[in-house]
Amino acid sequence: MTNRDADTIVTAAMLAIGDELLSGRTRDKNIGHLASALTLQGIDLKEVRIVSDETEEIVQAVNALRKRYDYVFTSGGIGPTHDDITADSIAAAFKIPIDHDPRAMKLLEDYYASRDIEFTTARKRMARIPHEADLIDNPVSIAPGFIVGNVHVMAGVPSIFQAMLENVLPALKGGTKMLSEYVECRHGEGTIGDRLGEIQQAHGQTAIGSYPKFDGKTYSTQIVVRGRDKQDIQRAIADIQAMLDELAD
Amino acid sequence: MTNRDADTIVTAAMLAIGDELLSGRTRDKNIGHLASALTLQGIDLKEVRIVSDETEEIVQAVNALRKRYDYVFTSGGIGPTHDDITADSIAAAFKIPIDHDPRAMKLLEDYYASRDIEFTTARKRMARIPHEADLIDNPVSIAPGFIVGNVHVMAGVPSIFQAMLENVLPALKGGTKMLSEYVECRHGEGTIGDRLGEIQQAHGQTAIGSYPKFDGKTYSTQIVVRGRDKQDIQRAIADIQAMLDELAD
Repeated sequence: MTNRDADTIVTAAMLAIGDELLSGRTRDKNIGHLASALTLQGIDLKEVRIVSDETEEIVQAVNALRKRYDYVFTSGGIGPTHDDITADSIAAAFKIPIDHDPRAMKLLEDYYASRDIEFTTARKRMARIPHEADLIDNPVSIAPGFIVGNVHVMAGVPSIFQAMLENVLPALKGGTKMLSEYVECRHGEGTIGDRLGEIQQAHGQTAIGSYPKFDGKTYSTQIVVRGRDKQDIQRAIADIQAMLDELAD
Repeated sequence: MTNRDADTIVTAAMLAIGDELLSGRTRDKNIGHLASALTLQGIDLKEVRIVSDETEEIVQAVNALRKRYDYVFTSGGIGPTHDDITADSIAAAFKIPIDHDPRAMKLLEDYYASRDIEFTTARKRMARIPHEADLIDNPVSIAPGFIVGNVHVMAGVPSIFQAMLENVLPALKGGTKMLSEYVECRHGEGTIGDRLGEIQQAHGQTAIGSYPKFDGKTYSTQIVVRGRDKQDIQRAIADIQAMLDELAD
């Protein structure tokens, strides 16, 4: 898809961290949620990586992604146990110091005191935040996420990830929103593919995607037209509709 | 986790390809499936990437992953439409020629003839396979996947991805299987974190993961011990059990 001169393009990547995602024990639920939320905000999610709970893997991935995209969002590894190494890995990636953050310590101290729960060394681990990071509010379980540079570090538990994301979205600079319309087509991709390729050629301002559905017997297709200008999209949709009308004759 | 001298470690990465995964339109269902299947086979899935339908993105990711891991598995982008660019991108990554493969052409020709469906230029696109690739049988919709070097190229539609994976798994060289056992713990991570960290220190042959569950009111934890030796795992589990018994006193 060609970008129009007037478009502002804002890009993002996600880094999901956790052995459990790679062993199959846990099915990720955060990638799809982030993808939908960013699309609504006019931010293009361009790449996702999933890596294990190993410092060197996290450091390498964060450094590759933060230099390449406007925003990076991480999920997982910020809890109280020994396998929660995300905060320390982010500090290592940025080569900045990390310690118990006084703001985070105060939040957690008050929270546990109010519930008469001991503020253990493990729980204090959740206050380890790289120096000069901004905190991300966690209304669910208090232990905050944080922002260093363009990297947003959030929890892996979906309810907490979603709550943290709600809190960071308003501050993100969105680009020209990606719009989309779709047409349901009762033919398989093989029937429409040649003509659809020509339509894509003629509508370079849009990205035309075709997604096969298979009900076990026959194929149908959802044709999705994406772009940043509503009229561009509608012109492509009109040509697709004309193609489908011809096929119906 | 430390590997024992006797262990054979076999590693893999996955590359999921498709704009629809990054826009939020489609939620990936193949990553979790592959993760579970490889774990059963004794292959460690070490990294996953999701990239868009852009040749340069696919080439870069495939080349980074295939050099680093024993096996690479891709999903998506091998259908009949213009946005299906995976086969050509794989050929570009390996710098090998690509053309309509006679074996694939024959399969598809016979299939469409038997169903009285026209073998369009778009459908022939699905026979574009890099030179010297091995084909992966597709019992669902015939159009084959393929293997070049250590890269296994498969469909994105989950039922077809799964069928193709079934067909390649028997030929993969598995390593020493990763085993796991888990203990359910009614305490939150903050309560057990300090002690659990010590237990991990004492059982370096295993990887102890702790996974919080939150029912909206209270936290509990699933503690998972992974390793390649059953006795190592059981020794760690015994220590975890002792810790939990102490907490129950």
